[in-house]
Amino acid sequence: MYGLEDDTRIKHVLVGIEARGGLMAETSYAPRTGAIARVVPETPADGVADVLGAAQAAAAEVGSVAPAVRRDWLEAIARALEEHDDELVALADEETALGEPRLSGELVRAASQLRFYGAVAAEGSWLGATIETEPGLRRVARPLGPVAVFGASNFPFGFGVLGNDTASALAAGCPVIAKAHPAHVGLSVRLAEVATDALTAAEAPPGTLGLVVGMDAGAALVRAEEIAAVGFTGSQRGGLALWRIANERERVIPVYAEMGTVNPVVMTTSAPVGEVAAGFVGSFTMGFGQYCTKPGLLLAPAGRGVPGAVAAALSAAAPQGWSLTAAIARDYAAGLGELLVNGAEKLVETPAQTSGWAGSPAVLRVDAAALKRGSRLLEECFGPVAVVAEYADAAELEAVVSELQGALAASVMSGGDSDPETAALVARLSEKVGRVAVNEWPTGVAWTWAQQHGGPWPATTAPATTSVGAAALERFVRPVTYQRVPDGALPPALQDANPWAIPRRVDGVVS
Amino acid sequence: MYGLEDDTRIKHVLVGIEARGGLMAETSYAPRTGAIARVVPETPADGVADVLGAAQAAAAEVGSVAPAVRRDWLEAIARALEEHDDELVALADEETALGEPRLSGELVRAASQLRFYGAVAAEGSWLGATIETEPGLRRVARPLGPVAVFGASNFPFGFGVLGNDTASALAAGCPVIAKAHPAHVGLSVRLAEVATDALTAAEAPPGTLGLVVGMDAGAALVRAEEIAAVGFTGSQRGGLALWRIANERERVIPVYAEMGTVNPVVMTTSAPVGEVAAGFVGSFTMGFGQYCTKPGLLLAPAGRGVPGAVAAALSAAAPQGWSLTAAIARDYAAGLGELLVNGAEKLVETPAQTSGWAGSPAVLRVDAAALKRGSRLLEECFGPVAVVAEYADAAELEAVVSELQGALAASVMSGGDSDPETAALVARLSEKVGRVAVNEWPTGVAWTWAQQHGGPWPATTAPATTSVGAAALERFVRPVTYQRVPDGALPPALQDANPWAIPRRVDGVVS
Repeated sequence: MYGLEDDTRIKHVLVGIEARGGLMAETSYAPRTGAIARVVPETPADGVADVLGAAQAAAAEVGSVAPAVRRDWLEAIARALEEHDDELVALADEETALGEPRLSGELVRAASQLRFYGAVAAEGSWLGATIETEPGLRRVARPLGPVAVFGASNFPFGFGVLGNDTASALAAGCPVIAKAHPAHVGLSVRLAEVATDALTAAEAPPGTLGLVVGMDAGAALVRAEEIAAVGFTGSQRGGLALWRIANERERVIPVYAEMGTVNPVVMTTSAPVGEVAAGFVGSFTMGFGQYCTKPGLLLAPAGRGVPGAVAAALSAAAPQGWSLTAAIARDYAAGLGELLVNGAEKLVETPAQTSGWAGSPAVLRVDAAALKRGSRLLEECFGPVAVVAEYADAAELEAVVSELQGALAASVMSGGDSDPETAALVARLSEKVGRVAVNEWPTGVAWTWAQQHGGPWPATTAPATTSVGAAALERFVRPVTYQRVPDGALPPALQDANPWAIPRRVDGVVS
Repeated sequence: MYGLEDDTRIKHVLVGIEARGGLMAETSYAPRTGAIARVVPETPADGVADVLGAAQAAAAEVGSVAPAVRRDWLEAIARALEEHDDELVALADEETALGEPRLSGELVRAASQLRFYGAVAAEGSWLGATIETEPGLRRVARPLGPVAVFGASNFPFGFGVLGNDTASALAAGCPVIAKAHPAHVGLSVRLAEVATDALTAAEAPPGTLGLVVGMDAGAALVRAEEIAAVGFTGSQRGGLALWRIANERERVIPVYAEMGTVNPVVMTTSAPVGEVAAGFVGSFTMGFGQYCTKPGLLLAPAGRGVPGAVAAALSAAAPQGWSLTAAIARDYAAGLGELLVNGAEKLVETPAQTSGWAGSPAVLRVDAAALKRGSRLLEECFGPVAVVAEYADAAELEAVVSELQGALAASVMSGGDSDPETAALVARLSEKVGRVAVNEWPTGVAWTWAQQHGGPWPATTAPATTSVGAAALERFVRPVTYQRVPDGALPPALQDANPWAIPRRVDGVVS
């Protein structure tokens, strides 16, 4: 409820952010009331240049220290997050209204992620070090250089300034410049400040982490010669806009945009109706439906009363919450309308909050025949709404599945591990998504070695990559082969003595 | 010297290629004389649709058989190449004039490559199989689907219809549709024919390999919904054109374009002048200068007479050869002129052939100060020409290196393994290229586990990937994570019993 000038906590001006008279400002609001939460000046052009210069200057050191050193830097950030947890969670809750329990858990998760990526960096498999004494070739991944990170509105800790993209890029040896998200610009500034202090104390070079504020500053990052890659989490509109900007550069750079999708759930004919209905409502209304992995579509066998059961489950749950921003609230209302004019009918709508960025959770029903490629019904509607469609038989189910866009995740809800319909559904859905779950909801995304958070276009602009999990580091490196290079002129990862003690493939043998 | 109708060898019509009255035709010429070599009808639109349909129909089987089965298919193609070696080499020599010794060696290389990618497929590391029993996540790479391959003019076997892209895509489980190269359209047809027969005998499904002829057919492939990725080897103009087409699709697909670059060579102050001069001439005139790894620029210490030594070495070698096509001969002459009007001076030009697609090998000299970003002098000139520039000191050398575009490869020529200038040069050049060699020329590209054939934009459209070596398979897959999927519904690579016996990371332990 106060501007920058009233908040001593964000008076510590970060590199490149200076409050100047007459400049544009980014304003966040408290979703519960609609009142102003924070006002932060946008980063002017010369401020962006300063941040870029600092990142460029840091790149050689960040990229060449032993991965275990960067693990220690990430540990320092994780500890700083934990040390400031009360303040950061309160600020996040004010700007997002996601609730302190959820946000406390998410802060813990963000700290764990930072440690996980640090451990992955130090383990060293991601370097892909490969040595052939004949013909004298040695190959290793090298960091790309400064990375621009555009975090998400819906996970201010997990996918924000210090989220998966930042953690995996730093782990891989790349300085990061984050763009503050307008929905939680105050938190973005504080996160960068807390992390920068921790990095300084841990003796990381200045410029290891930077922040810019404002849409113009963000676009300038994507165009900047110093930037080598872009990580983005958010809407298709936003991600594709950055991808287009990057493709117009003289030196085109990769944009790793992870974008919201419809994440279909398929019930087999023997799946338990009541349990699935309740679980589905819990999943699609989690975080007020503001998950990129929200299941937006349930394909259910006809004749088992699933649409009614889901509607009843929503009425019973009567979830409450707020949209993250005014724009999201407006888009949610509009999206709901678009689903209805595209053939869906409303089965139930539960009461909205009476203040702030409100919106009504809803269950819609649609004929399977209406689910055709290009239909709005097969696109994400960000918020607490889901569509249920009944299929008459396997042929009609296949007809719908064949129309689905690429998605981040899908779930099969079966009648148990011996359900004979499971295998074919898993195989079919794996062609469409980055992750297939059986009898679990798609909403949760663990940060582990085996995770894949991505999927075919348009779930992401780079379907071979993941934005969560150990392989996330691979986005921020490219391999270089050294041919007959004397040992002393090789990078440490390839020297005979293996000073970083990483796994390597030497003459065909991995050890 | 004869058309399709006179050649019984190419009367066996391939899938999708039918000679029809009134259609456009692709014509190859004998570079030594300029006479017509082969005339092959372009694939009409319905022919392209047939080839695409066959590839799509094959995709499930090609992608789901055990990798060892695909190894056997690749072995069958390799054997077929060897069995037809005399015929294929003679045809290639007629259409390319690269000479039978070089082409025989290249055919042997192509067969070895096919076997190498088959072995890599069967070894299975590329699948990245990762299992975590808790939280029940299993991740593995799955093939993308049909791949369109646009081979190069300059390596009709090694980077042609059956070259690295085709071999690595098939190894990864993707059907391939190759576009015949106009420079050797007759050979392209025969290669596809020979390979298709071998695949049929090895019981690969129809559609595992297809061919189309003509520019319109090639563009149609890149636009086709069935195509999941594109491999390209050739000029920046050609590669970027395909990349732009792919970016305009509704479902954007990756284009892996490996494009020609200037591949700088840097001599340290103590490098042996006579040896380097002779080696440089051998490297830049190899294959009549028509290598994507041709070293086009030599940066030499001033005051040691390097430009004169290189000119003398070219005069002594007096290499002879032909451009691959009339267009390449024309572009070479034009490119030579562009280098001269951009500040280079001609030191020596040796006599050209007197017939066919001739061109004169040449050595140019330029002031280091003229080597500025955007200059034609820093772009590839495809053919037997190289530019020599002298640097006064380390600062001037660094000034030039900082202006270099991304390139496939670079070499450092040193005064020996203890040369103190080597390490810094290797480190600096590794920021600009995909491969750095010391005291070896960049021209040769071994197909091994540790190879990287790629480099920063614009050397390739996907700098994190390689078009040669074991990692080439990774271009044609994307990972999928299976969450709590019952064993029987998992793909074989992730089942508890590990039926393909591939290396896997299970709960953190690789075995």
